[in-house]
Amino acid sequence: MIYKRVALIGLGLIAGSIALAAKRRGLAETVVGTARTAQTRETAQKIGLVDEVFETPEQAVKDADLVILCVPVGAMAAVAAQIGPHLKAGCVISDVGSVKQAVIDAVSPHLPDGVIFIPAHPLAGTEHSGPEAGFATLFDNRFCLLTPTDAAPVNEVARYRDFWEQMGAKVEQMDAEHHDRVLAVTSHVPHIIAYTMVGVADDLRRVTNSEVIKYSAAGFRDFTRIAASDPTMWRDVFLNNEAATLEILGRFTEELFALQRAIRKGDGELLFDYFTRTRAIRRGILDAGQDTDAPDFGRTRSD
Amino acid sequence: MIYKRVALIGLGLIAGSIALAAKRRGLAETVVGTARTAQTRETAQKIGLVDEVFETPEQAVKDADLVILCVPVGAMAAVAAQIGPHLKAGCVISDVGSVKQAVIDAVSPHLPDGVIFIPAHPLAGTEHSGPEAGFATLFDNRFCLLTPTDAAPVNEVARYRDFWEQMGAKVEQMDAEHHDRVLAVTSHVPHIIAYTMVGVADDLRRVTNSEVIKYSAAGFRDFTRIAASDPTMWRDVFLNNEAATLEILGRFTEELFALQRAIRKGDGELLFDYFTRTRAIRRGILDAGQDTDAPDFGRTRSD
Repeated sequence: MIYKRVALIGLGLIAGSIALAAKRRGLAETVVGTARTAQTRETAQKIGLVDEVFETPEQAVKDADLVILCVPVGAMAAVAAQIGPHLKAGCVISDVGSVKQAVIDAVSPHLPDGVIFIPAHPLAGTEHSGPEAGFATLFDNRFCLLTPTDAAPVNEVARYRDFWEQMGAKVEQMDAEHHDRVLAVTSHVPHIIAYTMVGVADDLRRVTNSEVIKYSAAGFRDFTRIAASDPTMWRDVFLNNEAATLEILGRFTEELFALQRAIRKGDGELLFDYFTRTRAIRRGILDAGQDTDAPDFGRTRSD
Repeated sequence: MIYKRVALIGLGLIAGSIALAAKRRGLAETVVGTARTAQTRETAQKIGLVDEVFETPEQAVKDADLVILCVPVGAMAAVAAQIGPHLKAGCVISDVGSVKQAVIDAVSPHLPDGVIFIPAHPLAGTEHSGPEAGFATLFDNRFCLLTPTDAAPVNEVARYRDFWEQMGAKVEQMDAEHHDRVLAVTSHVPHIIAYTMVGVADDLRRVTNSEVIKYSAAGFRDFTRIAASDPTMWRDVFLNNEAATLEILGRFTEELFALQRAIRKGDGELLFDYFTRTRAIRRGILDAGQDTDAPDFGRTRSD
């Protein structure tokens, strides 16, 4: 047991997986939770996701040794303001937001002295959401990035790190601004691009009936999974990591125009060299153990 | 048995899968093949991919009832010129190119009278290539699009259709120009975008060391798979489907700029509505049986 009482604010995919992963390894004596909608709370109750479901965040955080904010980035400030006065002295508060500097700015002002804030971002998820989407192995071998400020006691950071490691994650620390820049490249911009491509296809679908969906075998299909992610979460990511997202998008457009020009000019050599270079990167990801080498992702056919 | 003797020109992922799928169901008495490089020919021979491996396309097509060109789109014209004089009268010739109008333009002039050309495009593949990448179930439940011209006898089209259906594919017919437009949306433009994004990340990797690869869990990882596809094949696709690719890319850029503007202006409502709309499209793809609903693609962990 690492924390006696853990409170989860929000009961979606990530919170649900934390509850199940912590239970699996006995990391908490009690895990409680709350969610904004009655429907989510009822479902969580029904499936026994946590030991107790509370109606409000204030109730949920009472006596908790660890509080994790599992709400969209845009809701962090309001939740922090709500729970701030009810946090136990010396408790650890964390979050799972995909953006870190904006969360620190939103949450910190509402925390009383003596509460230890250790922002976190588990790089794990699926395109599904809601209390029934969680599973205990979600974090296995996935990275969890911690971005504690200098104010956080080293022993408390080590303890929280241990919590994530025992849930299966590989934990690393970095500063919040750096986190936001790296994630803009690896996650945020790929998402906005996938959303855009699916949007374009949607326009065309009206012309070509259902063909775009029907013949989506290669390429587009992978984009639709990315573009099926939770709309609220992603709206908040882009609004709260604006600078890094726009910077990387600028680079992306520049490169895209260069390839577009090569297509128009029939410059096969430029295209071939570019595609050869990007192919090597895939090898790096496989070597880093971040994906499966099985053909077609090791996909199990649904049909 | 549908064809007595089948000749495959090129022995990569698709050709290998055709050989294995045809054998599995006894669709051909003999399957022979040839490949440009001695190394591929030797590997194919060693693993027994086809009944006989020939050194040249001329030798391979001799007495064949069905010849399938499984070479990059850019190589089709040269191969057709080479084999044209050696094709058996009345034989069917097909291809598996991702672009159809350009292949028709490249191949048709080299075919003698009495030979029946039925262009095809199986919507199947993985990011792997080469003679050892093929497998017998690659086409199971995947679409194969035929784009025969009016000159092709109906009974011969039906027979070739049967060949693909018995290899597991769902076969549909359409005209070549329409095919090229639909595929630009579902496959070609998604690929150029994925290549671009991975290229951008590669530039940045030099700055942030290996972090881009390390933390590639969500979004970017899916792009790298797409961008790991065969460089020669994709160079030829873009050079040979230039018009449709550039048209769709134009639409894409237009939409991307609209979302970029929404991020800059902090227009959360526009982003939310857009992301909600694209999410629905994923549902359409699952309903069409084109992907698995298992979380994270049903990926098996490689670590």
